Amino acid sequence: MEPEDIAHLLEASPPKERQVLWQLTDPEEQGDILEELSEDVKDGIVSQMDPEKLAAVTEGMESDDIAYVLRSLPDDKYQEVLAQMDATDRHRIEKALAYPEDSAGGIMSTDFITIRGDVSTDVVLRYLRMRGELPEATDTLYVVDEEEKLIGHISLSTLVTTQPDVEIKDVMDDTDEAIPVDMDDGEIANLFERRNWLSAPVVDANNQLVGRITIDDVVDVIREDAEHSMMSMAGMDDDEDTFAPVLKSAKSRSIWLGVNVLTALAAASVSNMFEDTLSKMAAIAVLMTIVPSMGGVAGNQTVALVIRGLAVGHIGDSNTRWLLSKEARVGLINGLLWALIIGGVVVLWKGNLILGAIIAGAMLTNLFVAGVAGVVIPIMLKKLKIDPALAGGMALTTCTDIVGLFVFLGLATVFLQ
Amino acid sequence: MEPEDIAHLLEASPPKERQVLWQLTDPEEQGDILEELSEDVKDGIVSQMDPEKLAAVTEGMESDDIAYVLRSLPDDKYQEVLAQMDATDRHRIEKALAYPEDSAGGIMSTDFITIRGDVSTDVVLRYLRMRGELPEATDTLYVVDEEEKLIGHISLSTLVTTQPDVEIKDVMDDTDEAIPVDMDDGEIANLFERRNWLSAPVVDANNQLVGRITIDDVVDVIREDAEHSMMSMAGMDDDEDTFAPVLKSAKSRSIWLGVNVLTALAAASVSNMFEDTLSKMAAIAVLMTIVPSMGGVAGNQTVALVIRGLAVGHIGDSNTRWLLSKEARVGLINGLLWALIIGGVVVLWKGNLILGAIIAGAMLTNLFVAGVAGVVIPIMLKKLKIDPALAGGMALTTCTDIVGLFVFLGLATVFLQ
Repeated sequence: MEPEDIAHLLEASPPKERQVLWQLTDPEEQGDILEELSEDVKDGIVSQMDPEKLAAVTEGMESDDIAYVLRSLPDDKYQEVLAQMDATDRHRIEKALAYPEDSAGGIMSTDFITIRGDVSTDVVLRYLRMRGELPEATDTLYVVDEEEKLIGHISLSTLVTTQPDVEIKDVMDDTDEAIPVDMDDGEIANLFERRNWLSAPVVDANNQLVGRITIDDVVDVIREDAEHSMMSMAGMDDDEDTFAPVLKSAKSRSIWLGVNVLTALAAASVSNMFEDTLSKMAAIAVLMTIVPSMGGVAGNQTVALVIRGLAVGHIGDSNTRWLLSKEARVGLINGLLWALIIGGVVVLWKGNLILGAIIAGAMLTNLFVAGVAGVVIPIMLKKLKIDPALAGGMALTTCTDIVGLFVFLGLATVFLQ
Repeated sequence: MEPEDIAHLLEASPPKERQVLWQLTDPEEQGDILEELSEDVKDGIVSQMDPEKLAAVTEGMESDDIAYVLRSLPDDKYQEVLAQMDATDRHRIEKALAYPEDSAGGIMSTDFITIRGDVSTDVVLRYLRMRGELPEATDTLYVVDEEEKLIGHISLSTLVTTQPDVEIKDVMDDTDEAIPVDMDDGEIANLFERRNWLSAPVVDANNQLVGRITIDDVVDVIREDAEHSMMSMAGMDDDEDTFAPVLKSAKSRSIWLGVNVLTALAAASVSNMFEDTLSKMAAIAVLMTIVPSMGGVAGNQTVALVIRGLAVGHIGDSNTRWLLSKEARVGLINGLLWALIIGGVVVLWKGNLILGAIIAGAMLTNLFVAGVAGVVIPIMLKKLKIDPALAGGMALTTCTDIVGLFVFLGLATVFLQ
C-alpha cells in the first residue's frame, strides 16, 4: 500500500483502530504518511510521538512538509525535535516555520533548480543528467542572475523542444508574475486557477528566488477553502476529524449551539412581546413559524451566493449596489408569489381572510428583508474582517427570525384585536 | 489583458455591462475567453452567437474545450456549427461530445505525445526538437506498443536527467493506474489529490490510450464539487450566475422555497394538533420555537460532517455504526448541557418549574434525534442516489422541526393541562 492510501485508511478509522493501525505502519514510511494526513488527524498522532521518533521520521522530507508535520507541537517539544536534527536541516525548517502557515512562504518548497541565462540548452541538459533526479513535481527551471535574483524561467517542455546550441536567455519566458513570499494562500489559489499554472516561483522583497509553489499544494488549499465555507456555514470547524472522540466533538459543536441559543431566545422574546395576542388566538401561534422559516431559507440562498462571489472575487465595490437591487427584487418577486400561496392556504385552512392577508403581508416583507440582508450581512462581515461563511448564516437567520415574527405578530396585534 | 482576466471581469459584471464588454473583446481571443468562463455565464453568451461565429472562434482550440463551449447549444444550432467546421475537426469534436461531461472522456484532452519503448532518450529528444512546441501542460510522454496500447510513461523530468544512450523502456515507469474513459470526474479528482498526480493517461476498454487528463482540469472539478456542496446545502444551483437576471434568479430560487413551504406547513400542522394547549397558555407559544431551532442547528452540524465524509470517501459500511453511536452520544451530551441551561432560563423567566422541565426534556430528546438523523439521512439519501448535499439539510430540518414541536407541545399538553 502507498503512504497516501494508508493515510486515507487512517482518516477513515475510529480513534482506537487508528492507533493500532499506526503502530503497524512501517517506520520508514511514517513521514510520508503524516504529510498526507489531514490536520486534525495528523495532530492527534504527532502529539503522541516522542521527539526522537519525530526527528527520525521527518529526516529527508521537504522543508514545507516537515513544517506541516511539526507546526502543531507545543514549543518545548518542538525545540526537542529540532535539537535532534542536524544543523542544516534545523536551519531550513526554522526558516520554513518562520512564515505563516497560510502564506506563500508556508506552502512553498525550497527545493528547486536554478540556471544561468547565458548557457546553451545542451549545457543545461548535461548539467541535469549529471545532477540526476529532479525535485518532486519539477516542471520549470528558474533563471537567476549573479545575485540570485529571478530574471526568467524555462519549462522542461520548452527545454526539450529547443535546439541544443540555443542560449537559455533567448528562449526563456520573463517572469512578470512571481509570487511574493507573504502572499495569502487563497489569493495564490485564485491565481493558479485563473492562469492555469502548474507551478510558480516565490520571491522575497528583493526579488530573490526563495521557493517554488506547485499545483499539488494549491489543490490542498482549494479543497480546504471550499470545505471551510461549507463546514463553517453549518457552524463546524473544517479541521474537525469525522472520527474525533465524543467529548472533543461535543465541545467543538457546543460553541455554535450557544450562539444559536441566543438567536432562539431573541426570537422568543420577540414573541413574548405579543403574549397577549397569542393568548387570544391560538391559530396565530400555529402559523407564526412559517414566515421566519421562509425568510431564513430565502436569505441563506442569497448569503451562499454572496459568500461564493466574495471568495472568487466577483463581488466588489463596483457591483455591490447592482447586486443589492437584484436580490431585493428577487426577494420581492418570490415574496409576492409565496405571500399569495400561503395567504390562500391560510384562508382555506383557518377560514379567516384577515389572517390570510396578515401572513401574506409578513411574508412579502420578510422575503424582501431576507434579500437585502443576504447581500448586506456577508459584505459587512467581510469589511469587519469576520469570516462571512462562519457568521453570515447565523446573523441572517437571526435577522429574518426577528423581522418575520415581529411583522407577523405585530400585524396580527393591530388587525385582529 | 489575458483571456482569463477578461473572463473574470465578464463574470463580475451585471448582464448589460457583460454584453457591452463582450462586444469589445478581440474576436481572435473570444475562444480562449469562452473556455475560461463559468458554465452559466458561458451559456448566456454562446446562446446569442451565430453558428458561423462560433465555428470561427472555436477553430484551433483543444477538443475538450470546444466540447465545453458547445455542449449547451440546442441540437439544430449545434449541427449548424459543426457544418461550418472541416471534417477532421468535426470528427474530433463529435468524439469528445460522445462522452458524458462529468466522465474522464468529457474532461480529457486528446492532444498528447506517444513514443515507442525501444528507442533511446537521445532519439526522443531529437524527435521532440523536430516536432517543436508540445501540447499544453505536457509533463509526461506515453509509451505505447504497435497496437497503440499503453505500456508505460516517462516524465520530462526523467527524460532530461537520463543519459542519451539509455533506452526508454529501461527508464519508463509502468502505468498501473491508467484512468478508464468512463470514470466519474469526482473519483478522478480524489485520485489526483491522493496521488499528487500532475497528469494521467486515459485508456479505453482495450487499454488503448485515448486521452490525457491534466491537473488544471481536475482543479476545476474539485472547485465545482466543493462549490456544489456549499451551494446545494443552501438550496442553490452551483452554476447560478451571481449576476443573473432577476426573473431567472427568482425562478431558480422559488423551487427550493416551495420545498420549504411544505416543511413549514408540516411543522404548523404539528402545532395545530396542540391548538388547545396553545390557547390555554401563551408562554408555550412563545417558547415553542427554541427546541426546533436548536435541533436544526445541531443536526445540520452532523449533516455537514457526514456529507464531507461521504464526499472524500471516509464514510463507508465499515464505520457507519461507529459514527452513528458517536453522533448520538455527542447529541446526548450537548442535549443535556443545553437542556439544563434553557430549562434554567425558562424557570427564571417564566417562574414555572414544570415548563422548565418540559423544555429541558424536549431539548434533550431533539438533540439526540438530531445526531442520529444527521448521520442516517445523508447516508440513506446517498443509497437512494439522491444528492445528500442538496436534500440532506432540508430533510433534517423537517425532521427536527416536527420532533421538536411534537415532543415539546406533547409534554406540555400532558403535564400542564
